[in-house]
Amino acid sequence: MKVLILGGDGYIGWPTTMKLSAAGHEVLAVDNYMRRRLMREVDCEALLEVPNLDARARLWKERSGNDVAVRIGDLNDWSFISSVFEDFRPDAIIHYAEQPSAPYSMMDRTAARLTLDNNLGVTFNVIQAMAEYTPDAHLVKLGTMGEYGTPNIDIEEGWIDIEHKGRSGRFLFPRAAGSLYHTTKVLDTDLLWFYVRVWGLRVTDLMQGPVYGLSTDETGEDDQLFPFLNYDEIFGTVLNRFMVQAAAGYPLTVYGKGGQTRGYLHIKDALQCVQLAVENPVEKGELRVLNQFVETFSVNDLAERVRASGERLGLDVTVKSLPNPRKEMEDHYYNPVHTGLLDLGLQPNKLTDATMDEMMQLVLCYREQIVQERIFRGVAWKK
Amino acid sequence: MKVLILGGDGYIGWPTTMKLSAAGHEVLAVDNYMRRRLMREVDCEALLEVPNLDARARLWKERSGNDVAVRIGDLNDWSFISSVFEDFRPDAIIHYAEQPSAPYSMMDRTAARLTLDNNLGVTFNVIQAMAEYTPDAHLVKLGTMGEYGTPNIDIEEGWIDIEHKGRSGRFLFPRAAGSLYHTTKVLDTDLLWFYVRVWGLRVTDLMQGPVYGLSTDETGEDDQLFPFLNYDEIFGTVLNRFMVQAAAGYPLTVYGKGGQTRGYLHIKDALQCVQLAVENPVEKGELRVLNQFVETFSVNDLAERVRASGERLGLDVTVKSLPNPRKEMEDHYYNPVHTGLLDLGLQPNKLTDATMDEMMQLVLCYREQIVQERIFRGVAWKK
Repeated sequence: MKVLILGGDGYIGWPTTMKLSAAGHEVLAVDNYMRRRLMREVDCEALLEVPNLDARARLWKERSGNDVAVRIGDLNDWSFISSVFEDFRPDAIIHYAEQPSAPYSMMDRTAARLTLDNNLGVTFNVIQAMAEYTPDAHLVKLGTMGEYGTPNIDIEEGWIDIEHKGRSGRFLFPRAAGSLYHTTKVLDTDLLWFYVRVWGLRVTDLMQGPVYGLSTDETGEDDQLFPFLNYDEIFGTVLNRFMVQAAAGYPLTVYGKGGQTRGYLHIKDALQCVQLAVENPVEKGELRVLNQFVETFSVNDLAERVRASGERLGLDVTVKSLPNPRKEMEDHYYNPVHTGLLDLGLQPNKLTDATMDEMMQLVLCYREQIVQERIFRGVAWKK
Repeated sequence: MKVLILGGDGYIGWPTTMKLSAAGHEVLAVDNYMRRRLMREVDCEALLEVPNLDARARLWKERSGNDVAVRIGDLNDWSFISSVFEDFRPDAIIHYAEQPSAPYSMMDRTAARLTLDNNLGVTFNVIQAMAEYTPDAHLVKLGTMGEYGTPNIDIEEGWIDIEHKGRSGRFLFPRAAGSLYHTTKVLDTDLLWFYVRVWGLRVTDLMQGPVYGLSTDETGEDDQLFPFLNYDEIFGTVLNRFMVQAAAGYPLTVYGKGGQTRGYLHIKDALQCVQLAVENPVEKGELRVLNQFVETFSVNDLAERVRASGERLGLDVTVKSLPNPRKEMEDHYYNPVHTGLLDLGLQPNKLTDATMDEMMQLVLCYREQIVQERIFRGVAWKK
């Protein structure tokens, strides 16, 4: 299958590129290095230096024998994205090409506007390019579980049947996201659902939870093939951050009461899920929504797991509750359905002690490179 | 009260400007003449020539003695909008500053992109400018009943209480709009709701149905004060179009079966509603949604009313069913709640035969200016 990966340089983009290439697909990875630019601008560069996308494609070719094509450019620019679609004519498109950080989107007006313009603009262009060049292709779009927020009812898989005053209907499950970044994913879903209805596109919208981990089947131990490991509050996901904090002897930064509960998954499972979605396309005119996570944890659960892993490895890990810079519930109901990907064949990798310790040991190899000032700065949701 | 009217040159913007000025408010009307530019570009200029906004403000001053301030500029440009807010410091902001046509938004990719960028961009800038300069001001935003689409259940007033698996929650009523234009209003609502939650803004989101009519208490018979009367399929609303078609001896253009049902209101009632919303602001952190229409009609109902009015005035009006260029249900359930504005004091003007005939007679005065080629061109929703 010809698979176009938009945002192929990212934390999940690059591992996906290798995974689908290893699975025998013809892969073109596209990126504009926006995340690298933003990480540099806000002084939140990743723990390990990561070679550029062309360099990584060459390393991957040496290691696996597989060719991966690369194009660098801005997908929000129609002249670029249209040439990508016209030349490559993908069967499937994986769309990761978004500004991925919630705190970044709340930093200031300029960062918020960049997030809105980039994320909506690229999604719009992808829709238009599909309609123009590959109307039968299947779009696999990365959304987020954060689109739903933390409602007081069970979160269904994208859709909900509502009985109301003796009549019934099926609707998108109501969304209420917790940051502007997450809200742009809600807007993406609305936009995709509209064009699926009027133009009969094929779309899978993946509601992904926070991802953790660094090594995949394709990276092996080769740190030149690892994706970005961000440990800062802006681009780092919570478990990755806690691991690095523990390795650095920095108290784990729990926000508020720490009862915030989310659905998590290992990066290997994120890749499995995306591959399953790509290899099981939907019909024309269908928007399939899949809740993409393996198990739920509260922030306190994760802090305790990291503390225990540290103890097993001889580290003295402390936990520090900070005033919550975000606006979110710290103690809430959370029960999301997540059977769709299991039905497609997902074999979950749970967060075992062995996984924790393996990841912690990996991080400890690079502890000298941790810059403590990058860990926390308290980007506030309040205006 | 200091009232800032964004999009003050538009079909409802200008009559609102006069109405609130007549009511004693200090009004600043802002526009960038985008609608005038688009009407010219697609050869869909209004039936009557309309003086520019500064000229109309002078005419209104002569007629009423009231000053209306005017600024011309692009609200999607931060340097402009921030200076407007910083200088004027409004108590209330009425936001009409959007590309208002569904068919325009479906014409081609460029028109769609303009609609998305302008509508979302201005709403985003309004939110940021309020937060920065007037955090206690009240935003009255023009949405559309079209945000809801035509669901199989009763449409509530913005919100719905959902009982699900033994638990319950209150959510934004699910949206599923019928054009990209309408979808941008859904995205506006999502964006507003997010910033209301995190920043405690005050917002009223008006879900307005199609508006008809030309003269208001403030225009009187002075056609230099009339708003745009568009009779083309792109910028014209359906009843206004049918009136002009009847006056021109052009068969009424019913799309498909004509069972498409919507909630309509006279332009005088649109003004009443907006004034009621402005003069009854909401608390901080509240998003009030009001369904703004007076009575529901199907397209066939309207065609029949226009035919009958024509008959009373000696016109031979025919109806022609055309293949529907849009993607919409032509026969559907439609039962939206609309009590919020009545509770605030709305005195509805129903579509009586007298109203029909008065409007038809007004249109007949200008029948020589109708350009038949502008009436229909069949902008299709299909890619």
